[in-house]
Amino acid sequence: MSTANIEEATTSCSLRPKEQDAELARAIGEFEHLSTVDNFNRVACKVRPISASAEKLLCELTIEAEHVNTKGTLHGGFSASLVDIITARAIGVTVKDKGMASVEIAVSYLLPVKMGDRIEIEARVLKIGRNLAFTDIEFRRPDGKVAVKGKHTVAILPNDPPVTATGRVVQF
Amino acid sequence: MSTANIEEATTSCSLRPKEQDAELARAIGEFEHLSTVDNFNRVACKVRPISASAEKLLCELTIEAEHVNTKGTLHGGFSASLVDIITARAIGVTVKDKGMASVEIAVSYLLPVKMGDRIEIEARVLKIGRNLAFTDIEFRRPDGKVAVKGKHTVAILPNDPPVTATGRVVQF
Amino acid sequence: MSTANIEEATTSCSLRPKEQDAELARAIGEFEHLSTVDNFNRVACKVRPISASAEKLLCELTIEAEHVNTKGTLHGGFSASLVDIITARAIGVTVKDKGMASVEIAVSYLLPVKMGDRIEIEARVLKIGRNLAFTDIEFRRPDGKVAVKGKHTVAILPNDPPVTATGRVVQF
Amino acid sequence: MSTANIEEATTSCSLRPKEQDAELARAIGEFEHLSTVDNFNRVACKVRPISASAEKLLCELTIEAEHVNTKGTLHGGFSASLVDIITARAIGVTVKDKGMASVEIAVSYLLPVKMGDRIEIEARVLKIGRNLAFTDIEFRRPDGKVAVKGKHTVAILPNDPPVTATGRVVQF
Repeated sequence: MSTANIEEATTSCSLRPKEQDAELARAIGEFEHLSTVDNFNRVACKVRPISASAEKLLCELTIEAEHVNTKGTLHGGFSASLVDIITARAIGVTVKDKGMASVEIAVSYLLPVKMGDRIEIEARVLKIGRNLAFTDIEFRRPDGKVAVKGKHTVAILPNDPPVTATGRVVQF
Repeated sequence: MSTANIEEATTSCSLRPKEQDAELARAIGEFEHLSTVDNFNRVACKVRPISASAEKLLCELTIEAEHVNTKGTLHGGFSASLVDIITARAIGVTVKDKGMASVEIAVSYLLPVKMGDRIEIEARVLKIGRNLAFTDIEFRRPDGKVAVKGKHTVAILPNDPPVTATGRVVQF
Repeated sequence: MSTANIEEATTSCSLRPKEQDAELARAIGEFEHLSTVDNFNRVACKVRPISASAEKLLCELTIEAEHVNTKGTLHGGFSASLVDIITARAIGVTVKDKGMASVEIAVSYLLPVKMGDRIEIEARVLKIGRNLAFTDIEFRRPDGKVAVKGKHTVAILPNDPPVTATGRVVQF
Repeated sequence: MSTANIEEATTSCSLRPKEQDAELARAIGEFEHLSTVDNFNRVACKVRPISASAEKLLCELTIEAEHVNTKGTLHGGFSASLVDIITARAIGVTVKDKGMASVEIAVSYLLPVKMGDRIEIEARVLKIGRNLAFTDIEFRRPDGKVAVKGKHTVAILPNDPPVTATGRVVQF
């Protein structure tokens, strides 16, 4: 079938340094805020953004007991949750006034990550179209090897601004 | 490339009724046990198996605040976590003396699920080979519509029995 | 993130028997027509639909030399091509006046299929929304075992009717 | 579940320049050879490798009538076939004496590609383990934008050397 979907990308517009600092501060604040929520997003509260742009959100996380499986290594379901939450937040750098909904998530598990390891997580926004956004994400271990690769395809919902009851805009 | 992988399936061997009852009891007990663990598997502690066989594990779950996103609907990352945990448990009906590791997870999000809804989750074991197992899973809403579809491909690790420090065998 | 995408499904409206016969005849004709085209759809020209409804398109195919890999078994790339083409045609039973574009395809390879085997291919339409359609597909061998499982998520393009230069409406 | 699969990667060993030239010549020859075969691999006969290493196989292809869909843009099924064939060939730079079998393929379609466009296709080998190899691939348009992203997870079959009847070793 056709590989032509909806329309051209609009992610080319980068942010200026000042805006990037503001975006990073906003992203750090939103992840910190997750320690106070009781919905599922709380599982990502220890993720710390270290750089933010329209194209890329780079984060770090130290793997603790709450993140692992029975073997004491990074849990595949938790990894998939981070693929969802972090890529959605990366789209949120550009898409601020619209709702979003997951369409597809896929995750490949290449190598284990041990408890105590600090991993680097890099989410990339590949395309933001009118109706769909495409992202991918890579989890890298302290030895620099890719442990987890994922992607997240997101529907953008024009008439569904992501505003909470408190009026606080959240991207996940 | 070839679609021939490793070798023939071994899931055809079904269980007799008595064995199914024992498997169901075991599965119910393992999910209940998750409310006592501090690793990531705890997020699945409210899943309740309602039937278990070598081919299929059927569960139910009522969606609560801890399972949803900012919009109050089933969280995509939590759904992906259940794809991982429930399909792994379904393989565990057959594979008891070997370790397992996720290779790939993929999830499609078709429809939202509201807080308070009780969903039916059906995991199917499609193939168990010497090195790989293939599963899929479907989340159905009270109206019978498919809300989430997923799959989980798992590596089987001969020399890595899934025994915990306490000697308790767990399948996730 | 949210699993709420666009809106409710509209595939519940089934076809009456007469309409199903007409749909089947149309589908058979379109696949036969592919033997006359020079675009990539030609690779599917030997697929034969055996039943067609809004929910399901069932086809059969005998594996020949043109469909296999170096080992003489069903080619993984050809299988992926059929996932694309046959699921798109299944959506075409319902979506007749709009264009479509692939968003995501995923394929799992469970077992090999030998040259000469006649396989049954069942495509299911899981949801058709305003902007997106979700399908899955299963290839079954003569022994009844699932050899290939796939899914195809499709964008529906309101302002892009799928009409060819000749005015012939095609769904792939 | 665990993200620990099989064992550590072995792709770190790069090739020296002379070996890279030899690998590139071999890869070019194998794709040219596909114009003479009658199996499905023939669809990739116009792919031209432009660099080859243990980590990466870079190719180019000009989109012709045989590669497109009804709309005259790159066919999604053909793209998926190239994801399969080109990533398998990339693994073949390192894995020469063993058989391989596809486990999973996934493809995301971001933007259309017009007939006549020359695209760059970059396959990366992310990990080669004892039993599994992980790859990804990106199709870039003349304007530098990513049109297609894919991944291919492959089983490595120790006792199944990929030798044809003629004794010619082929990697796809």
